[in-house]
Amino acid sequence: MDKPAPASHDVHPLVSKRWSPLAFDPARPVDDATMASLLEAARWAPSSYNGQPWVYIVGRKQEAASHARVLGCLVEANRRWAKDAPALMIGVARQSFAHNGKPNRHAAHDVGAASAWLTVQAESMGLRVHQMAGIDAEACREKLAIPEGYEALTGIAVGYAGTMGQLPEDLRQRERGERMRKPQSEFVYDGVFGGAAGWVKKG
Amino acid sequence: MDKPAPASHDVHPLVSKRWSPLAFDPARPVDDATMASLLEAARWAPSSYNGQPWVYIVGRKQEAASHARVLGCLVEANRRWAKDAPALMIGVARQSFAHNGKPNRHAAHDVGAASAWLTVQAESMGLRVHQMAGIDAEACREKLAIPEGYEALTGIAVGYAGTMGQLPEDLRQRERGERMRKPQSEFVYDGVFGGAAGWVKKG
Repeated sequence: MDKPAPASHDVHPLVSKRWSPLAFDPARPVDDATMASLLEAARWAPSSYNGQPWVYIVGRKQEAASHARVLGCLVEANRRWAKDAPALMIGVARQSFAHNGKPNRHAAHDVGAASAWLTVQAESMGLRVHQMAGIDAEACREKLAIPEGYEALTGIAVGYAGTMGQLPEDLRQRERGERMRKPQSEFVYDGVFGGAAGWVKKG
Repeated sequence: MDKPAPASHDVHPLVSKRWSPLAFDPARPVDDATMASLLEAARWAPSSYNGQPWVYIVGRKQEAASHARVLGCLVEANRRWAKDAPALMIGVARQSFAHNGKPNRHAAHDVGAASAWLTVQAESMGLRVHQMAGIDAEACREKLAIPEGYEALTGIAVGYAGTMGQLPEDLRQRERGERMRKPQSEFVYDGVFGGAAGWVKKG
């Protein structure tokens, strides 16, 4: 299933085609070379002082115990569909800079960027990515042995498209739901917070 | 000038070509349609509960007072080169969800993602983006009238490539510097923090 963004302005196909589905093909694994490419795209993301504060803890179906453990770190509502995703990850932020030990106030921001670049690569190779805020922080800390100074931020499901038929009815409805965003004029300002200007788009 | 990432594994050209330069062409503005496309790519980024916590305060050279005001929110070390970038932005995170007022712990993460998608679009249109942690938070708050509940996170310079000749000598050296990243094995773990596995790449 495809669900292109109803974009108001021209965007690259990788932008408009990107979508976070619930249905992943459980029978099609993500192979080693593909994983290497996805993680390589994350690797080359820009970051504050090139601190690269991202860590990915991965569970693929090929490594069944790892997949089960990462799956167990998601909240139940996400486990229902993410169980089928052949690669699951927890995105983790290192809270301080390695070079001087000082707090990195851009750690979460830069993990978000790295995961976005991972998604760009995935979309370019025909895979889909669905990120989740809904993870169990305590389970992450314990089951994944995340040490002090690191914080689990997101769950990330990666794989190839599945079908509607594999989803329970309530998730099918969610999968069909309309894609919505605020208009640009609600988040783009000229020169000052709230600043309006002719060039800022209403849509 | 191009400076492709010396990637160890296959990545999409938008990933490998992306680079954060210091030299932007001061004479080539970013027009309205291009701005709309860049911001549209940010608009369609995924976010926790679709909260879309990003705000961009923009100063283009076409709006000289706005450009000067946003430039004045960067630290001096960044103003030296960012003055030439025809579009400057401050990326701002809304700290709470609009739908229920609760704290959004993924706000910074999701701004990072939106700015990454903006960068994808920019690269696809032949522009470059250079994000900066080095902003003056107090100046942002005052000059840009950023209200309580919002936090300025990054400066973002956008424009077309400039030339080495426009940079002072110390910045030319920086511009020529080698691009470096940690190997995947230092940020990719299998199943548990620190977990090694055969599929995780050493490079």
